[in-house]
Amino acid sequence: MSSRITTFFGGSSGLWRVEKQHTVIGAPIEPVARVAVVPGGASPRECVWGLRGVTSNTRYASGAEVRTLQERQPALDRPEATRAVLIPIRKNAGWWALAQDQRHEIVEARSRHISKGTSYLPAIARKLHHCRDLGEDQPFDFLTWFEFAPADEGAFDELLHFLRSSEEWRFVDREVELRLVRD
Amino acid sequence: MSSRITTFFGGSSGLWRVEKQHTVIGAPIEPVARVAVVPGGASPRECVWGLRGVTSNTRYASGAEVRTLQERQPALDRPEATRAVLIPIRKNAGWWALAQDQRHEIVEARSRHISKGTSYLPAIARKLHHCRDLGEDQPFDFLTWFEFAPADEGAFDELLHFLRSSEEWRFVDREVELRLVRD
Repeated sequence: MSSRITTFFGGSSGLWRVEKQHTVIGAPIEPVARVAVVPGGASPRECVWGLRGVTSNTRYASGAEVRTLQERQPALDRPEATRAVLIPIRKNAGWWALAQDQRHEIVEARSRHISKGTSYLPAIARKLHHCRDLGEDQPFDFLTWFEFAPADEGAFDELLHFLRSSEEWRFVDREVELRLVRD
Repeated sequence: MSSRITTFFGGSSGLWRVEKQHTVIGAPIEPVARVAVVPGGASPRECVWGLRGVTSNTRYASGAEVRTLQERQPALDRPEATRAVLIPIRKNAGWWALAQDQRHEIVEARSRHISKGTSYLPAIARKLHHCRDLGEDQPFDFLTWFEFAPADEGAFDELLHFLRSSEEWRFVDREVELRLVRD
């Protein structure tokens, strides 16, 4: 069984070269030249920062939505997917105080997060890593990871713009974006 | 702000004396004489075992259910609540593979977990600690903590019997029960 924990190490080594790093909202993280994606708990490693996340159960997707995702989503590490984007995100206390149905209403009924994301499959592979419940005072709540071919970068930008304009994103109080190239 | 992490230390010290400890299903944990409930991450401490959990956002309760809970639920540490029960629980892989709506359907529509629990308020205080996303291969998924006055132990037993007979509990593959007395 594959590891549920993944650590993203920012520093001077790793498969992924940072093409662009910028802070969307909130505190920045240290600029780095490369990112390594390492399964398992954080082992000692030369790095500027390490961001840890854990894959978890679905929180909002219904059975029908999960089936559609499973049918359409591509694997990670496709040879043609030489572009990746790492987006660490934190949501504010108001978000976490909402009940399950209220968060679901915002995520899907009002922000169309799941249905819009699905419409970009199979071009854009995505993996969500949860951080909030890894421990106290985590720097981010989620680490979202996307992979696509260079020709699909425009589609990815469109999806990102859609999500950032959504009601759900009004709850995001920290967000950093790293554009990566596999070389 | 209070700590989201709590560690339950089993050993020879702590506020709570173990009156009875038994394994409901799955592997047991070491028998202990006392339990200490310590806010924050696990600090080094003489103990036989330490079980860590984190309070998290609600996973199934609706806005209306959360309001009812907030109105009716008692605080922990009531002077009269000299009985406590710690129930560490793990659910099987089949449970975690279900989509959000499927789990919600089982928890509430078919097992009445939330509405039945609410009907025992304000007698029985409850706090749920999540473990599954604290890291890899946690021994349990949840640590549930209950506090009540001695006179309410019969009501607690009734609630516990109801939940263990539910469809939701068919997914429980490890469960231990510790009955505790504050002295």
